[in-house]
Amino acid sequence: MTASEKISALRQKMQENNIGAFIIYSADPHMSEYLPAEWQERTWLSGFTGSAGFVVVTKDKAGLWTDGRYFVQAPKELAGSGIDLYKDGMDGTPDYIDWIISEIPEGGKVAVNALATSHANWQLLQEKLSAKGRKIVDLPLLKDIWTDRNASARKNPVFVHPVERAGKSVTEKLNDIRNKMEELGASVHLISSLDDVAWTLNLRGSDVQANPVFLGYILLTKNEAKLYVDLDKLETDARKQLDDSCVKMMPYDNFFEDLKDIKDEKILISPNSNQSIFEALKENNTFIKAPVPGNLMKAIKNPVELQGFRTVMQRDGVAMVKFLHWLTSQVGKEPMSEFTVGEKLRGFRSEGKNFVGESFGSIVGFKENGAIMHYSAKQEECKEVTAEATILVDSGGQYLEGTTDITRTLALGKPSEEFKHNCTLALKGLIQLSMVKFPKGTRGVQLDAFARLALWKEGKDYNHGTGHGVGSFMNVHEGPQNIRKDMNMQDLIPGMVLSNEPGFYYENHYGIRHENLIAVREKETTDFGTFYDFETLTICPFDRNVIAADLLTEPEKDWLNSYHEWCREKLENELEGDVKTWFLEQVKPL
Amino acid sequence: MTASEKISALRQKMQENNIGAFIIYSADPHMSEYLPAEWQERTWLSGFTGSAGFVVVTKDKAGLWTDGRYFVQAPKELAGSGIDLYKDGMDGTPDYIDWIISEIPEGGKVAVNALATSHANWQLLQEKLSAKGRKIVDLPLLKDIWTDRNASARKNPVFVHPVERAGKSVTEKLNDIRNKMEELGASVHLISSLDDVAWTLNLRGSDVQANPVFLGYILLTKNEAKLYVDLDKLETDARKQLDDSCVKMMPYDNFFEDLKDIKDEKILISPNSNQSIFEALKENNTFIKAPVPGNLMKAIKNPVELQGFRTVMQRDGVAMVKFLHWLTSQVGKEPMSEFTVGEKLRGFRSEGKNFVGESFGSIVGFKENGAIMHYSAKQEECKEVTAEATILVDSGGQYLEGTTDITRTLALGKPSEEFKHNCTLALKGLIQLSMVKFPKGTRGVQLDAFARLALWKEGKDYNHGTGHGVGSFMNVHEGPQNIRKDMNMQDLIPGMVLSNEPGFYYENHYGIRHENLIAVREKETTDFGTFYDFETLTICPFDRNVIAADLLTEPEKDWLNSYHEWCREKLENELEGDVKTWFLEQVKPL
Repeated sequence: MTASEKISALRQKMQENNIGAFIIYSADPHMSEYLPAEWQERTWLSGFTGSAGFVVVTKDKAGLWTDGRYFVQAPKELAGSGIDLYKDGMDGTPDYIDWIISEIPEGGKVAVNALATSHANWQLLQEKLSAKGRKIVDLPLLKDIWTDRNASARKNPVFVHPVERAGKSVTEKLNDIRNKMEELGASVHLISSLDDVAWTLNLRGSDVQANPVFLGYILLTKNEAKLYVDLDKLETDARKQLDDSCVKMMPYDNFFEDLKDIKDEKILISPNSNQSIFEALKENNTFIKAPVPGNLMKAIKNPVELQGFRTVMQRDGVAMVKFLHWLTSQVGKEPMSEFTVGEKLRGFRSEGKNFVGESFGSIVGFKENGAIMHYSAKQEECKEVTAEATILVDSGGQYLEGTTDITRTLALGKPSEEFKHNCTLALKGLIQLSMVKFPKGTRGVQLDAFARLALWKEGKDYNHGTGHGVGSFMNVHEGPQNIRKDMNMQDLIPGMVLSNEPGFYYENHYGIRHENLIAVREKETTDFGTFYDFETLTICPFDRNVIAADLLTEPEKDWLNSYHEWCREKLENELEGDVKTWFLEQVKPL
Repeated sequence: MTASEKISALRQKMQENNIGAFIIYSADPHMSEYLPAEWQERTWLSGFTGSAGFVVVTKDKAGLWTDGRYFVQAPKELAGSGIDLYKDGMDGTPDYIDWIISEIPEGGKVAVNALATSHANWQLLQEKLSAKGRKIVDLPLLKDIWTDRNASARKNPVFVHPVERAGKSVTEKLNDIRNKMEELGASVHLISSLDDVAWTLNLRGSDVQANPVFLGYILLTKNEAKLYVDLDKLETDARKQLDDSCVKMMPYDNFFEDLKDIKDEKILISPNSNQSIFEALKENNTFIKAPVPGNLMKAIKNPVELQGFRTVMQRDGVAMVKFLHWLTSQVGKEPMSEFTVGEKLRGFRSEGKNFVGESFGSIVGFKENGAIMHYSAKQEECKEVTAEATILVDSGGQYLEGTTDITRTLALGKPSEEFKHNCTLALKGLIQLSMVKFPKGTRGVQLDAFARLALWKEGKDYNHGTGHGVGSFMNVHEGPQNIRKDMNMQDLIPGMVLSNEPGFYYENHYGIRHENLIAVREKETTDFGTFYDFETLTICPFDRNVIAADLLTEPEKDWLNSYHEWCREKLENELEGDVKTWFLEQVKPL
């Protein structure tokens, strides 16, 4: 079926059900960032593969709303589909709800699959639509159109993340969560976000690409804990651990049926859970809408998890150094493309102990492709990598002990002075943020500008956040903390792991990003309070060829030299031969 | 009457009205920061003179809740009153609403004067009290107890702030506000905050100490504008201007009576307006609760107002230099106290053209008194100022063309190396914030840490905001923008004037603060957006004796030297004799 045939089939269903508009979000029942294959409805329908964006179909129009990252890619992928591109954030682009209201008559119905949208979003939609006399209804119209879904993910094994790596037993975690339930006056707690489910039960899976999670729900009361999961996929150890922790195993498909039996309870649930859950419970229960308490507990890594990070950083650093040596010495000598460079890097990582897979699809951007922020090189259509330009490589690994995420920007040929200049400005940002010390209670938004100031002083900036939370053998993006321009009330707490990744993007020319992972650490308590700083976790030198040393202040140069010296201590004994010789040159003082 | 007699009289009234608890906030009907004398009910009742804090009286208990600034002062002022001190923000201090609930039985009534509390606060109280079965009622119980109020403020003249200084006519302002009303779907708009009333109508008064405002309300519809004010106090020019701008003059005391005639309107009103207004209107109207639109317009100074600031800064700088010269050369030679130093400074300011008065009560803190953040030296009880320690002087002036606010910290004797060190750290903060450049859309919270980093690096900090908005011949504290650790969604917009005032406080030893006023200014537009920076407005050298030059980076030293050179250019010709000689020494390069 072509996109246009799929849309025709959908319109047929819409007409049968008297639906004026159908919205297809990029979402699954667990509000995951990356979707299991069977839930990639928007991609299936439209052909658009970007990570963000949603489609609205009416009787005679269809539109995709997506953001600036995809203004080049989207038109190509939408060609021939009959779907128009609406550029989010550009002047003149209508809000999609306003657009729907203008396209369907008063009294018209808008359908959404309530399983694939959050309660919070449903409420917003409902409010805006009902204010204008339109109605929202729950109808999974694609269910009977996309019939050959790949639900194989459901069968991926679920295995134990042992307490030796998790640092905290399931019993302890459930106990902590139940204490929070009591504090909030909740009798029942539902967890639907996959990373929170996996963290709570010290289990891991592989239902979603690059995220070691599995499809599941947790239903928790004071005395009972149930995991709804495809029972077949539980490994023996996983079953045993659940038994030992008094967690009952229930079939995934029974979840909604069982919700019907819940009555007169005070249910602690995140408003970011899917709307179907709220529908199932709202008649007979009251809600306490609040973030999943385990989410913050997960973000604050315990000493065992932090040690896991330190361990895998060494392994990841070895892979990165081997890769960087290979890339810089072989470029121009053997043929390579953005895609094969990414494959090669995965190869080096996979030599490491306990490597599970990539923590996200590598971003390998050569020359102007480096300026495309979420670029994903495709085997059949990507740039050749030569010794004549710069390259940005953003990648990471999942290891049993932890998760990595690192970006290095390299000059494969001789870089221009301008490139080095801008590369150094971004690096000054990384260094300034690395050196910062701050009082307890500080939020990410207060520190974000340290990573930007050197660029700001020259009228430059980067259009993304400076830091996101990182999981422990878990999703590479996690909350609740971050370091961004946006407001976020969550303060930084010792144990939180974040990325530190300032960049600079010169459209159609080149892209620059430097990224280390850092952990919030308690530093000292003085008469004026308790102060924290960041421990740098990532162990890998920066390319000396892209640094204009004269732009660095003495403290910045000292930081960089100490960092490289520390890299030497950590990696030297793990390397040999040409790689080692090359590496020792890289980490010399500037 | 003693405080204890006043409380007895109040309890009598409470009993007559079957009231379990009475709350006396520090507030007037306009939610002013500084109160007209007749509204200083909390001070009258308790004897406590601090700027923040409120009293709760029950049948047998009475408490004052106030914050850390007043933990020393409050017990002294409360002595013998029978009022206990509850230290806000300290562990173990009960929330006052929880305390009330614990002190009065279920079904009990809590009385508040709805005129002297905001709608937002009333709602919060109501919600919390009704959840626990207590009731809130509006009763101005002190009305018949405090009968000899000084209502003389009501008769202070209201005069024109001419368009030559305001930069925008009343007609233009009303037009802009009406456009906002239309945007928000409002048919009526009420303005009760005194600075917004004065700004809108280009009028000034002196009903509140240091704030050039007058008691008034504005009632605005599409076609009509009314000012409720004591008509006697309007000067002829003010009447003419109001007539010319089609603003009707109505007696202040008719305001609530007239509200009764408003029906079926959509009323744009700030939730920070007093509760009595909401009570008067709620039956027959709907509310659009939002900030007063003129508030943001007022914060964005127009070119005429900015020029006014520049003009008065020169005048204020001359006064400050004369004062600093007098202080540093006369200390130890003639007797002086914190109080007389403040008086002397006012004397120098009053020599300046168009000086109206102080913009707030000067803070002159000698030695350890410098560490008391809102210290107010009293004539009868304050420190002698000698040539043996350091002094912090925070002061400002109201001039017809603008408002100033400046802090300098001086060594009157030879300062310790430690003092110089910390003084320089705070100065580095001021300089870093002065030098920052930032993209459009940046909020104060993103910049606050630049002023703190040098202190943070040594485990130090200051426990107040870095910058507040400043009015144009208007309140020295205004919103909506600020530079603080706290979240504030308001971004910084060219024309906004703010203070830049990092400090450092070593309790029982000394206090340090450096303060300049700065204005947000559009700097450049690049491929990466529009960038702003700060124009420094304040013109007055920093004391060289408190600066450890070796702690300054080259860019910081350059900034300071340029600043002093600019001070020289601006002030040199306004000075003569010994003062000039002294001044030229002060502004030499470091």
